Amino acid sequence: MKKLMNDSRYVVEEMVEGYVKAHPDLIKQLPENDRALVTAKETREGKVGVLIGGGSGHEPGFLGYVGEGMADGVAVGNIFASPSPDPILEVTKAIDKGAGVVYLYGNYAGDVMNFGMAAEMADLEEDIEVGMALATDDVASAPKEEKEKRRGIAGEFFIFKATGAAADFGYNLEDVVRVAKKANENTRSMGVGLTPCSLPQTGEPSFEIGDDEMEIGLGHHGEPGVEKGPLQSADEVTERLVNDILEDIEINSGDKVAVLVNGLGSTSRMELYTMFRKVEQMLSELGIEIYRSYVGDYITSLEMGGASITLMKLDDELIKTIDHPVNCPMFVQK
Amino acid sequence: MKKLMNDSRYVVEEMVEGYVKAHPDLIKQLPENDRALVTAKETREGKVGVLIGGGSGHEPGFLGYVGEGMADGVAVGNIFASPSPDPILEVTKAIDKGAGVVYLYGNYAGDVMNFGMAAEMADLEEDIEVGMALATDDVASAPKEEKEKRRGIAGEFFIFKATGAAADFGYNLEDVVRVAKKANENTRSMGVGLTPCSLPQTGEPSFEIGDDEMEIGLGHHGEPGVEKGPLQSADEVTERLVNDILEDIEINSGDKVAVLVNGLGSTSRMELYTMFRKVEQMLSELGIEIYRSYVGDYITSLEMGGASITLMKLDDELIKTIDHPVNCPMFVQK
Repeated sequence: MKKLMNDSRYVVEEMVEGYVKAHPDLIKQLPENDRALVTAKETREGKVGVLIGGGSGHEPGFLGYVGEGMADGVAVGNIFASPSPDPILEVTKAIDKGAGVVYLYGNYAGDVMNFGMAAEMADLEEDIEVGMALATDDVASAPKEEKEKRRGIAGEFFIFKATGAAADFGYNLEDVVRVAKKANENTRSMGVGLTPCSLPQTGEPSFEIGDDEMEIGLGHHGEPGVEKGPLQSADEVTERLVNDILEDIEINSGDKVAVLVNGLGSTSRMELYTMFRKVEQMLSELGIEIYRSYVGDYITSLEMGGASITLMKLDDELIKTIDHPVNCPMFVQK
Repeated sequence: MKKLMNDSRYVVEEMVEGYVKAHPDLIKQLPENDRALVTAKETREGKVGVLIGGGSGHEPGFLGYVGEGMADGVAVGNIFASPSPDPILEVTKAIDKGAGVVYLYGNYAGDVMNFGMAAEMADLEEDIEVGMALATDDVASAPKEEKEKRRGIAGEFFIFKATGAAADFGYNLEDVVRVAKKANENTRSMGVGLTPCSLPQTGEPSFEIGDDEMEIGLGHHGEPGVEKGPLQSADEVTERLVNDILEDIEINSGDKVAVLVNGLGSTSRMELYTMFRKVEQMLSELGIEIYRSYVGDYITSLEMGGASITLMKLDDELIKTIDHPVNCPMFVQK
């Protein structure tokens, strides 16, 4: 697959360099580690630090979400690979303002291991208290009874948003972690894959799929989904995804939700808004109120084709977090 | 090519319906015409109305740029086709607050005809004064001596941004049109195409290109470019595009520019930031100051692969317009 790149070994370095040069007022690299980025505005004393991270190739996730009202720093991994403990630890040291740091990341083996190691080092070597919250929003990735085994996908955006706001409100570490876990507990996603992406170093497609097929529940790195079949209409696909979510979490008439219709990379806004139209019809018929909507590319997989739908069930506290303004290089909310 | 859609005849209607449902606090359809959208916040009396428009399939262009600080309304065409005069006229009537309306659109035969007709109708039937400014930023589409024959591409974003701000500052119609024309005069774009998109109704690729080829100067609807050849590295492509721009407009050491690296649909942020890295290197070597940077999908062509680079040369007045805050459904600037 064709890509606008230079030497495939340095795609992440070159992206990060371009990114920091494009937004010098908002983000900077730490001198200790060029995979460790923090907000260019000094984090205030006593505020819990919010650290996000994961593999590259999911932009705007994760480096795009560092800024006012969201994360204070990010550890950047190779494409589709966890960051190593070093940049995580460097970011931790930089954003700790005496109130501890919360780590937010998706539930993948590599991330669990490396964020865990970094947390241990932060505790033992630096005496920094670290809290953790994993995203496990992907309904397709494990049965309901084993939510803790599920992968994190686009719902991570809501978890970052809610947690970043809670830290900004001045909550202590325990409360920030509580909000992060509640956000994850209240969030469900279901995705559909249409076309694969390719890794810059191999150029090979990330998964096999027929010219007229779709895969329901496909993971963000091409992990197998729950069902492969002929491509259906946008309404049929949306109905399937929303119904799978609603079977997994109790959302009743009168409840409020935030909705995210997320593109995986090469899916047009026209397609995403067509899907949103059906989401709105379905929720409206059930008496569920859409409190806020996000439609666009929020967590991608390079140029993968497809989309995911995420619902976050809201209570008063989560509404406050979702309303909180944000100013990040790749996401701004007034 | 696979798409998440329903009946291909109604893709624009369904997108618009989803769009308005997703952002009811920001945008609404006029009851007179469902292709006529205006800001949900009442435009204030005495402010010049800013009307944008063009074909669908370029999202966030054009309907994504209606909101505070940018356009007051948009006329929505079919895919890659000009809106008819009717929705243009309806938006004109809705957003005229006694100070006239400016039409901003790309230099394409259909748009020139339909916006011209609407302006005439607004004048004769409604007694509304209309000013017009065309985007002609695509360096590849006609020689330097015939800039007025050039197409409008991603530079339209800068023209909308500057003009929307000028209207918001309270400038009169003559001055708003002057700023729009200055923004266009100071803006140059060059694009590269890698992979075609397909129209929902035919599913056929919009142009032919080899598996390892690129086309420099390719238009937003697949119009032929100036050179087809083997795909080069991101740095080589960027160098070519920036040099073509700098040969076309005098930008000297000490001058300030706004930079837009725009994705055409399926090009990842990783690729776009890699290109920005090289733009920054080149301008920095020339002593040209990058005052503000925009990197992402701003004017697309469905799922086309490729990118464009736009430079807008800034003076004090344009700096003021580019700094002005914006709150649109698909673009927010603090």
